[in-house]
Amino acid sequence: MTSNSFDIWRDQQLEEIEKFLTKHLANPRNRLNKLSEAMSYAVLDGGKRIRPLLVMAAGGVFDASKNGLVYVASAVELIHCYSLVHDDMPCMDDDDLRRGRKTVHKKYNDATALLVGDALQSLAFGLLADEYNGLSDHVKLKLVCELSNASGINGMAGGQFLDLEFVGRNASRAELEEMHSMKTGALLAACVQMGAATGSATQEEYAEPLRRYSSALGLGFQVVDDILDATATTDTLGKTAGKDAKNSKPTFVTVLGMEASREIADDLERQARAAAKELPREGGYLIDLVDVVFNRDF
Amino acid sequence: MTSNSFDIWRDQQLEEIEKFLTKHLANPRNRLNKLSEAMSYAVLDGGKRIRPLLVMAAGGVFDASKNGLVYVASAVELIHCYSLVHDDMPCMDDDDLRRGRKTVHKKYNDATALLVGDALQSLAFGLLADEYNGLSDHVKLKLVCELSNASGINGMAGGQFLDLEFVGRNASRAELEEMHSMKTGALLAACVQMGAATGSATQEEYAEPLRRYSSALGLGFQVVDDILDATATTDTLGKTAGKDAKNSKPTFVTVLGMEASREIADDLERQARAAAKELPREGGYLIDLVDVVFNRDF
Repeated sequence: MTSNSFDIWRDQQLEEIEKFLTKHLANPRNRLNKLSEAMSYAVLDGGKRIRPLLVMAAGGVFDASKNGLVYVASAVELIHCYSLVHDDMPCMDDDDLRRGRKTVHKKYNDATALLVGDALQSLAFGLLADEYNGLSDHVKLKLVCELSNASGINGMAGGQFLDLEFVGRNASRAELEEMHSMKTGALLAACVQMGAATGSATQEEYAEPLRRYSSALGLGFQVVDDILDATATTDTLGKTAGKDAKNSKPTFVTVLGMEASREIADDLERQARAAAKELPREGGYLIDLVDVVFNRDF
Repeated sequence: MTSNSFDIWRDQQLEEIEKFLTKHLANPRNRLNKLSEAMSYAVLDGGKRIRPLLVMAAGGVFDASKNGLVYVASAVELIHCYSLVHDDMPCMDDDDLRRGRKTVHKKYNDATALLVGDALQSLAFGLLADEYNGLSDHVKLKLVCELSNASGINGMAGGQFLDLEFVGRNASRAELEEMHSMKTGALLAACVQMGAATGSATQEEYAEPLRRYSSALGLGFQVVDDILDATATTDTLGKTAGKDAKNSKPTFVTVLGMEASREIADDLERQARAAAKELPREGGYLIDLVDVVFNRDF
């Protein structure tokens, strides 16, 4: 598989997902134009879309239908985007810049940002249960459970809570890993599991490599994020650089040092690649997404 | 049906729901004790529980299984409670008092309140899809769709957005009704529909009276709220009285006057009662809930 074929595939997926999200974020009620516009602002035209690409790639490995996958990929991206909107608010990380543009509460106001996030979450669950997504009832319900677990107290929201508790204090490597495995890892892992479940991956045969792939990728994603936060510029990142230091939050770089962090990232990259190779089609585009996650500069 | 039998029934339902919510809000992870505690604080030991009672009563009319109904009733209550937590935050209504106690952001802090609401929403959808609720896949998915619609941009969140836009300006009766039918009415109507769907109410036969019942009850609930906000004391309400006036929000009372508001409430009460009578078991406890909604003093 050449990187060229991956680029073509990625552009196709992103175009379809963007079209789907644009359509489902438009709202027919005139009076809600402003909220609908703010929801679109929070979701469209930005972001690396790593989560939806993971869904599409994992689904592709297990022969999932394209139509169903686009619903699932979009649902996960809506959850991710709602978490960014809430996370940027003054009572959380208080950030003005996201994806190179004003954050939602800066562009609109805090109340709108709060409701944008709330409504995006509802919409995400609706897409998974949608009668037009063509998935079997059994699969739809599996997806709802998976997304609920990954985004609630034992996943993303719980991880964000732990993250806040770290402000201004030290953390051990184990504590950092636990926090990140919930805050970011749970949803990334859910992308892989949900994509696989949308296809034929009901066999226990691949449960183990799927788990290893997503956990290495999820943790690696965060280690790379910490390295970039310490080294890149705001301009490249599209969000405020050096923000963890500013917020006195422990990171892999502050706790373990830059060299050790790079070694951990390299090790996780190898683990993710090895796990992907054990899947059907030798991991398909999941292999290319390892490159995307570990060798990005934003 | 005597009011005595209703009281016994209500106490039984509330006890079961409270037990169920307590169990599902407890979290096994030590590190998340504080978030789990704040979620429980937001949900337990308070509130009129009108929404879960509507679910249980509508389900009872259509012979729904008790086990399934408790899941559905609790899911709806979690959505309601998350909306209160977010609505009380400084960037929304900025209220210190709810159910006679400190609001969540006052008791904890704003970031915790934000995450409590987010995690309660995820949990609600998880309960509807839960493998242990005993409902058929088809019914579960219908419930997820119904709850997603009722709580998202075209329901509760959209209504809260319109509500914020009313601050400091006048509104017509039609505008007020539209806003309330989304902000409060959509979830109340969903309770009735979801309870019925949990049972045997798949027949189109009862769709019309169910719709009339919930829409009269939903709007009536709000008119009564506005009357109480203008007449009751903070002590009786358990939340800040006169809060709409303080926030310069138009209400049925400010727009139409007290007398007209009382007439509208009476009319809606008659409509709700008449619609309930057209249902099986002459509406069962749905009739008693008309009394609860229209003749409450808090």
